[in-house]
Amino acid sequence: MSGCSELVSGMAASVNAGRGKMIRPGVALLSGLACGGLTENHIRAAAIFEMIHNVSLLHDDVVDEGKSRRGVSTLNSICGNESAVLFGDFLLGRVMQMCVGLDKRVADIIALSAMRTCEGELRQIAQRGNWSLSEAEYIEIITGKTAALFEGACATGAMLAGAGESTAQALAAYGRNTGIAFQITDDLLDLVGEQDKTGKPVGSDLDNSKLTLPLIHLLKTAGEADKQRVKQILSRQNGDAGRMGLIEKLNACGSIEYAKKRAEEFVERAITAIAGVGDNSGSGRLSRRQDL
Amino acid sequence: MSGCSELVSGMAASVNAGRGKMIRPGVALLSGLACGGLTENHIRAAAIFEMIHNVSLLHDDVVDEGKSRRGVSTLNSICGNESAVLFGDFLLGRVMQMCVGLDKRVADIIALSAMRTCEGELRQIAQRGNWSLSEAEYIEIITGKTAALFEGACATGAMLAGAGESTAQALAAYGRNTGIAFQITDDLLDLVGEQDKTGKPVGSDLDNSKLTLPLIHLLKTAGEADKQRVKQILSRQNGDAGRMGLIEKLNACGSIEYAKKRAEEFVERAITAIAGVGDNSGSGRLSRRQDL
Repeated sequence: MSGCSELVSGMAASVNAGRGKMIRPGVALLSGLACGGLTENHIRAAAIFEMIHNVSLLHDDVVDEGKSRRGVSTLNSICGNESAVLFGDFLLGRVMQMCVGLDKRVADIIALSAMRTCEGELRQIAQRGNWSLSEAEYIEIITGKTAALFEGACATGAMLAGAGESTAQALAAYGRNTGIAFQITDDLLDLVGEQDKTGKPVGSDLDNSKLTLPLIHLLKTAGEADKQRVKQILSRQNGDAGRMGLIEKLNACGSIEYAKKRAEEFVERAITAIAGVGDNSGSGRLSRRQDL
Repeated sequence: MSGCSELVSGMAASVNAGRGKMIRPGVALLSGLACGGLTENHIRAAAIFEMIHNVSLLHDDVVDEGKSRRGVSTLNSICGNESAVLFGDFLLGRVMQMCVGLDKRVADIIALSAMRTCEGELRQIAQRGNWSLSEAEYIEIITGKTAALFEGACATGAMLAGAGESTAQALAAYGRNTGIAFQITDDLLDLVGEQDKTGKPVGSDLDNSKLTLPLIHLLKTAGEADKQRVKQILSRQNGDAGRMGLIEKLNACGSIEYAKKRAEEFVERAITAIAGVGDNSGSGRLSRRQDL
């Protein structure tokens, strides 16, 4: 990071060592390609969305006392909580600086995406331990927490390429639906994934008393006795044993399948949203199901 | 906060209940008055600087597990660490949004002030337990950590009133020097203040192995035996007893007086910086020594 002190550059390098899949910048750039081509500001916007995402991971790790992420030590485990929180705040300042000079509408979308992400996360925390959370409420939460950045990245990519209002809206819808599908899948992997493959510990949502789609489905469809048993397992937070019992019930009630189906539906919605947009490598890549 | 969810508004109200002295927005507005008058954007910029300052307090409280600030319960003690960190991030998103539409130079100064604040705090953390910290290094740290927001608030206030480059620079210098004087005084009160009057616990810098100006002076001027004894006290962090021993030595070596004198020198520099600026209620108030 040019112009920054060695201290800050060192922290940036440490965060960068655990680079993720770069999905948000990816969809920002592909949205630009789909809408006419890339400009220098696309690179800037793409970086901004990844930085906002990284701040949320940095700050999550502080609060959860996470030791490793993406296979490398977390910044909090290297520099302590204080420095990790401050470095996240520093990055948000840098995001503010990178927004200067961007088109007003674009800067506004970036700011709103950042706010909606935080608000979604705050709502999820407020709903912890609420075993009556509805599917609609869950979708609303992840639409903020996860899909807002996808939506903002796609809308921004389109607008910076000079797309008109309806095309930008189409790309925004693509991003939103992709983000929802992504989070449903991520939540599914937290229940049934394998740590070796996902790189994340499993069962953390259960440990955090966080209801996700398969469990919401199970609690809605199971018989009264099963429901009570499931709530007991959820309340006891009894680790692997509880998780295995739950997974059996989730499979028996078709809840895993249901969540997969819902994720696929949001992927379909995403692809449908951009059906009329261009006909080039950008929109082609955005619509490749195997990439989603 | 209009347009926000009830959840976020509730948190904002909770933070607002412990409203501070509002010094940063105060100097932003007075700088505007000193340079020709206030606009709507002055109110926006003034709020922005107070919000950035509040985020740093919110996040400090999470890391320090602070229970009360300004006489009211901290947000982390009410809502938990996760929500307090996220609400701080939300506020920074809101700051980004409030910057949209501001003059580019003003938005750039705001972003830079936020970054310099974090960088100053990060440098201070990195210097913990360094008993060889020089006065120049200490001044450099607090110039970022504290004075950057004062400097940015004053420069912004001037620029939004249509001040030319040299006047804006004069106000920036006023803010920077006032900020440095403010922090030296704040650090002094941490050593010799009374909690009843300052509203803050005393001795927290010692507990955090943080060298401030009086101690830097003491470690420079004391005889070798005294220096060793002081370093022992600092390393042991032995609470009130250690603090009383230190204060005796600080008084004996004139270190308390020295820090007061240095703070006054920065106040003088601040007043001198704006000697040529206007002749109205704004610059008059900025130069009233009893307010500083």
